[in-house]
Amino acid sequence: MHEMLAIDTERVIASLKHLARFGAQGQGVNRPVLSDADVESRRWLAGEMESAGLTVVVDAVGNVIGKSKAPRALLLGSHTDSVPTGGWLDGALGVIYAIETARAFNLQFPDAPIGCDVVAFSDEEGRYLSCLGSKWFCGELSLPDLARLSYAGIDFAGAAQLAGYDSEVGAQFDARRCIGYFEAHIEQGPRLDNAELDLGIVTGIAGMRRHRIVFKGQADHAGTTPMSVRKDAGMAAFEFAVQLRDSFVELGAPEAVWNFGAVEFRPGVANVVPKEALLTLETRDLRLEVLDEMQKRVADLIESNDGRAGVSITLERVGDLPSAIMDARLLQHVASSAAQLTDKTMHLHSGAIHDAMVLARHVPSAMLFVPSIGGRSHVYLENTADKHLRMGAEVFAGAALSMISGG
Amino acid sequence: MHEMLAIDTERVIASLKHLARFGAQGQGVNRPVLSDADVESRRWLAGEMESAGLTVVVDAVGNVIGKSKAPRALLLGSHTDSVPTGGWLDGALGVIYAIETARAFNLQFPDAPIGCDVVAFSDEEGRYLSCLGSKWFCGELSLPDLARLSYAGIDFAGAAQLAGYDSEVGAQFDARRCIGYFEAHIEQGPRLDNAELDLGIVTGIAGMRRHRIVFKGQADHAGTTPMSVRKDAGMAAFEFAVQLRDSFVELGAPEAVWNFGAVEFRPGVANVVPKEALLTLETRDLRLEVLDEMQKRVADLIESNDGRAGVSITLERVGDLPSAIMDARLLQHVASSAAQLTDKTMHLHSGAIHDAMVLARHVPSAMLFVPSIGGRSHVYLENTADKHLRMGAEVFAGAALSMISGG
Repeated sequence: MHEMLAIDTERVIASLKHLARFGAQGQGVNRPVLSDADVESRRWLAGEMESAGLTVVVDAVGNVIGKSKAPRALLLGSHTDSVPTGGWLDGALGVIYAIETARAFNLQFPDAPIGCDVVAFSDEEGRYLSCLGSKWFCGELSLPDLARLSYAGIDFAGAAQLAGYDSEVGAQFDARRCIGYFEAHIEQGPRLDNAELDLGIVTGIAGMRRHRIVFKGQADHAGTTPMSVRKDAGMAAFEFAVQLRDSFVELGAPEAVWNFGAVEFRPGVANVVPKEALLTLETRDLRLEVLDEMQKRVADLIESNDGRAGVSITLERVGDLPSAIMDARLLQHVASSAAQLTDKTMHLHSGAIHDAMVLARHVPSAMLFVPSIGGRSHVYLENTADKHLRMGAEVFAGAALSMISGG
Repeated sequence: MHEMLAIDTERVIASLKHLARFGAQGQGVNRPVLSDADVESRRWLAGEMESAGLTVVVDAVGNVIGKSKAPRALLLGSHTDSVPTGGWLDGALGVIYAIETARAFNLQFPDAPIGCDVVAFSDEEGRYLSCLGSKWFCGELSLPDLARLSYAGIDFAGAAQLAGYDSEVGAQFDARRCIGYFEAHIEQGPRLDNAELDLGIVTGIAGMRRHRIVFKGQADHAGTTPMSVRKDAGMAAFEFAVQLRDSFVELGAPEAVWNFGAVEFRPGVANVVPKEALLTLETRDLRLEVLDEMQKRVADLIESNDGRAGVSITLERVGDLPSAIMDARLLQHVASSAAQLTDKTMHLHSGAIHDAMVLARHVPSAMLFVPSIGGRSHVYLENTADKHLRMGAEVFAGAALSMISGG
């Protein structure tokens, strides 16, 4: 089997454009999970998988799975749901690459003992739950778990039933069958584009911790209360954020990122000293020790500032995603395949979450990034140069073949 | 006329308690302008004024005005509308003091050439417009101005008509008739209470300037965008607030106060770098030069921070209330009256707005403060010691008589 896969990059581009018609909004797509556009696109994807020589199963959450007739398989895929203001390639790229790779593989190696399975995951974007599809696929969720999910008053289970998904079709992941998982995706950030590189070899997906920091002081009339006796929860929050930023910068972890994405004052009116302030903080890094050190700095700063100027500070951990490390052996196949077409590659980690984060908990996994122009993501204008779409497809197919052949 | 006014402090307390039944919420009141409770309370107030020997006029906005039969008069009063979670004394105190003073004056000096007029102003709390009643009374608003006011989808003019107020009844203030305005009020702050004083002689009402400071950066994925390339409007706002606070402290103006009462991030979600942050800032001081210096420091800091880390900063002035200086001659009458009962008084300025701020633009004005326990205000638990309620009434009546007699 040590030859190239004869994939058709014209068909890759054409298929991506066809998929982008479902929920099209200008150049982008509005295709959230269980929207009409999402449900219809999955019927089309099922047909594409069948025409690529795969046997299709649609599970309880709408994951479309194309299975090779081989007893074992490398799993290829990504997701095809989008955020409401989504780009045409986010997720879609990895699924179309996977179908084209499986099609070529089945034509060239119809009787191989290890084949290519393909999956189009549902709700990676987390309308109901982040990576819902891959979690269901891997058996991490139960039917009662699904029954608890709702969005804007619509419960997931009812919407899935309306879409025709059979709640009896459970986790399709089979550890004896699956030799690995391989996913292509746009970068969703600017590093490849800024460095004018062609491809990225993803070493891992950063872990993320989400905190809510609550400052409690006292509401007072902002005109009549002397500054010296105020218990200003808002000012305490401002000061905390600046001090924590300085502490994180001083830490000097080059890949670490953090974000104060939301802040709320209560009562939040101009002439009342804020009695309460809520800060939302995310910290991310690939390395557990860096996440832990950031965590410690949050706790230390809370301890040293708590009670100052009459404002108490408490911490709530509201989310915790452990980082995922990609499989070194699989990454070597990706790097070798890329090296045949370009030397403009880099190893990098993903700051965004992907289905590979879930799959990596169950099977050796790998990811390939193509550059996103300007690093734009989750916007209609998201795009990737045609050259990179084609090169990515070739490298993806080559790496998949190499993983299957090379063991 | 150089005798004391024989007021009945029992009746003052009883009247305050009766008025507190309109919109009662525990110990406090929920009596916003044009609520049923507010409209009903004004009918009762009109009766009280008539029984005190005054001729009542209700104007287009619901101000209840009791006029002496004398050709000239000192105007006494305050407001009786409340915030939704209001105290029983805020505003009400000054109106009940005024009615009792007029009642005693009319009994003792039925034929005096200068009498006591009384007013219960409407919407001082600004549900539709801050000091709406006193502004209308003084001719600062036109019918078209009123027609533009609405709250929660209800237009003021329609609600006033439903309440039975006659839109033809215009400004009742008459500069030839009115020799001055005198208002009693609870302090709405902790200075008298903290210093264990009995009464406050108000030298002026602080001017207030309200600013909206708008920070504009760029929304980016908080996981995938390196810290070095972010244009984080939220962090810029935090840093600005801390720097401005330091600058205001360094200014060293002992009476100056400021407040960041509200902040908003857009889009305001945990995993997106804020593209926009809106900060609401109020600055207050009695002295124009201090307000101007604070204004200059806001502008200077915006200029020095604008464009830093890709975040632009712009300033909007969204409100400007000039400070009001109370009349020195009238204040001397207040101080002399107070000195007959206590030496535990202080001269102080008001950080909160009062109807006297509007009246002072048209006629010499003065204010008397009674302490508020714990400085609590705009809460149901607002209260004043019985001793201070009675002492305040005596001093108010004595000062009013002295103003009328002493010229």
